[in-house]
Amino acid sequence: MSLNSGMTWKLLRSSIPPLDTAAMDAARARQAILTKPAGSLGRLETLSIQLAGMTAQPRPHLPEKVVLVMAGDHGVAAAGVSAYPSEVTRQMVGNFLQGGAAINVLARLAGARVVVVDMGVASDLPPHPQLVQRKIARGTRNIAQEPAMSRAQAEEAIQVGVEVVLAEHARGLDVLVVGDMGIGNTTPSAAIACTILETTPAAIVGRGTGVDNRGLARKQAAVAQALKRHQPSSADGLDVLSKVGGFEIGGLAGAMIGAASQRVPIILDGFITTAAALLAVQLAPAVRPYLIASHCSLESGHAAMLHWLGLEPLLDLGLRLGEGSGAALALPMIEASARLLDEMATFDEAGVSGKAAQ
Amino acid sequence: MSLNSGMTWKLLRSSIPPLDTAAMDAARARQAILTKPAGSLGRLETLSIQLAGMTAQPRPHLPEKVVLVMAGDHGVAAAGVSAYPSEVTRQMVGNFLQGGAAINVLARLAGARVVVVDMGVASDLPPHPQLVQRKIARGTRNIAQEPAMSRAQAEEAIQVGVEVVLAEHARGLDVLVVGDMGIGNTTPSAAIACTILETTPAAIVGRGTGVDNRGLARKQAAVAQALKRHQPSSADGLDVLSKVGGFEIGGLAGAMIGAASQRVPIILDGFITTAAALLAVQLAPAVRPYLIASHCSLESGHAAMLHWLGLEPLLDLGLRLGEGSGAALALPMIEASARLLDEMATFDEAGVSGKAAQ
Repeated sequence: MSLNSGMTWKLLRSSIPPLDTAAMDAARARQAILTKPAGSLGRLETLSIQLAGMTAQPRPHLPEKVVLVMAGDHGVAAAGVSAYPSEVTRQMVGNFLQGGAAINVLARLAGARVVVVDMGVASDLPPHPQLVQRKIARGTRNIAQEPAMSRAQAEEAIQVGVEVVLAEHARGLDVLVVGDMGIGNTTPSAAIACTILETTPAAIVGRGTGVDNRGLARKQAAVAQALKRHQPSSADGLDVLSKVGGFEIGGLAGAMIGAASQRVPIILDGFITTAAALLAVQLAPAVRPYLIASHCSLESGHAAMLHWLGLEPLLDLGLRLGEGSGAALALPMIEASARLLDEMATFDEAGVSGKAAQ
Repeated sequence: MSLNSGMTWKLLRSSIPPLDTAAMDAARARQAILTKPAGSLGRLETLSIQLAGMTAQPRPHLPEKVVLVMAGDHGVAAAGVSAYPSEVTRQMVGNFLQGGAAINVLARLAGARVVVVDMGVASDLPPHPQLVQRKIARGTRNIAQEPAMSRAQAEEAIQVGVEVVLAEHARGLDVLVVGDMGIGNTTPSAAIACTILETTPAAIVGRGTGVDNRGLARKQAAVAQALKRHQPSSADGLDVLSKVGGFEIGGLAGAMIGAASQRVPIILDGFITTAAALLAVQLAPAVRPYLIASHCSLESGHAAMLHWLGLEPLLDLGLRLGEGSGAALALPMIEASARLLDEMATFDEAGVSGKAAQ
């Protein structure tokens, strides 16, 4: 643990630095002299300049890659909002720890280590070297009827997220992939999005892991009921998290605040991590420039959330799995953008002629 | 060299197998029992099933990855159709061999070896272990005035492409990334596309490496002139290649015929490699199911070419570099699709519950 791990999230959020414009200028200038027509690497060039700004390195190096998967259960699952039973949260955490899930395959391919955090799984989990046990409670309450958690628990979730990331940063963390696991968690994510975007459940709620039409109706009703009953305030992220959130969602928001405070680029995955990003940006607007959108999920509403954040996704492949899978899939592309900037020869170095007079 | 390398391309093109439907069925069945909601990996799932069909492996392994960059010069460059002087072709081949180009960085990241072939660079190139010397002539003739090459040279270009790929296959080749280098080569590529798609230069010709408006007008005029003067027949790929093609474009078309004959998936890059794919499919329609479109180039007309081929690109990132760069960027995603299919645990193996009754 670094000394930083004792920092409170409230202190850290006011210390998030802006992007380093000098590093960005240097990266931009270098892109112009690398052996390729200027601009011909499209998004990879702009991304490399953003990474320079985030890391304050003119030629960013990203050797230490971490996939942080936060898990929690949701009382609202009892309302029949998911195609899968709640026990799958615990079972999938086991799968992550055994290396058999999609996120494990993608992390191995990208050369990233996987860190799994129990933020609020309903049952006890056996110890495991890759499992960080920070359970706040055994699942949230059913938001259709009660607030998800207390305000103190919401603060704790954020703080745990910050601490987990600072601990990983002390071990080496150059880019953070965020992922989630929690049966039922597209429902609180939709409620968060409806609140922050000030829109209706119909615009946001989707089929998640694959509910049928009746399940979709139950889900929309649960979100509508939660919003009507608790009236979360879009101006108060802790209010939103405590009333309609989830432990893993709060933890992920805290992780983003922690990462941004250390100049670590954050790769968002799909619907749930983007809901966490909405909270993080509400709590700490300076987080926003550190966010990279990996893909646009098939889940309704994700595009609207990304639009609110001002993010353009890199991929659009019809993914809707979560776990950080889309973000881990984009990781090699993000590493590519940094390595192209760093490793390509300049026109001078390679003895290549520039543009002819036209 | 394998015995196969003596095969003529005409013999090989009639031996390209169709996709293996039994392997595809097995891959599809396995996707349904892996620990994720069915279909939640979107394009990665369909891609894995295609790869199974191409390779005839229910769980395709793709350890040996080759980036094949073919280079050639173009007489039409004298018509002022490029932003760069012709000597850049030779200089960039040198850059590829020194490891300083974008394609080198991306190939290193994807774990692929780079093979550079001189198909028709205008000047002599010093020997290099990674350079395959198969020069057919010192550049094509100016297609605005004369046919690019003789019909015999067109046949030779195809044959060389086949032989180079069969030789690489003998060394180990599980997936082929195709790339190009040739100042001026978007002009013959556009002429090929206009012929095969039976459309006008205005619909296809773009700015290539970045010509200005006057350069664009010269380029459109050159393509229009070439088409009018030589009247290439869309039903005869050799006629198209010889009249308005390029040596590296013919070589790439041959490489695709060779790869498909060995059940090797082919990842297309941008405008030039896709023009080569149009020729390959015209010459050997059975090549088509072996093609994967990595990205949609910013270059005008690329989308129309992909549409004609029935291919949906994986990425859309505003790339327009060539060299195989977009294809190499997509390589980790293609490997990911295969490894997810192979390495993920099933519901039974992981002890994860399936869908609940809804």
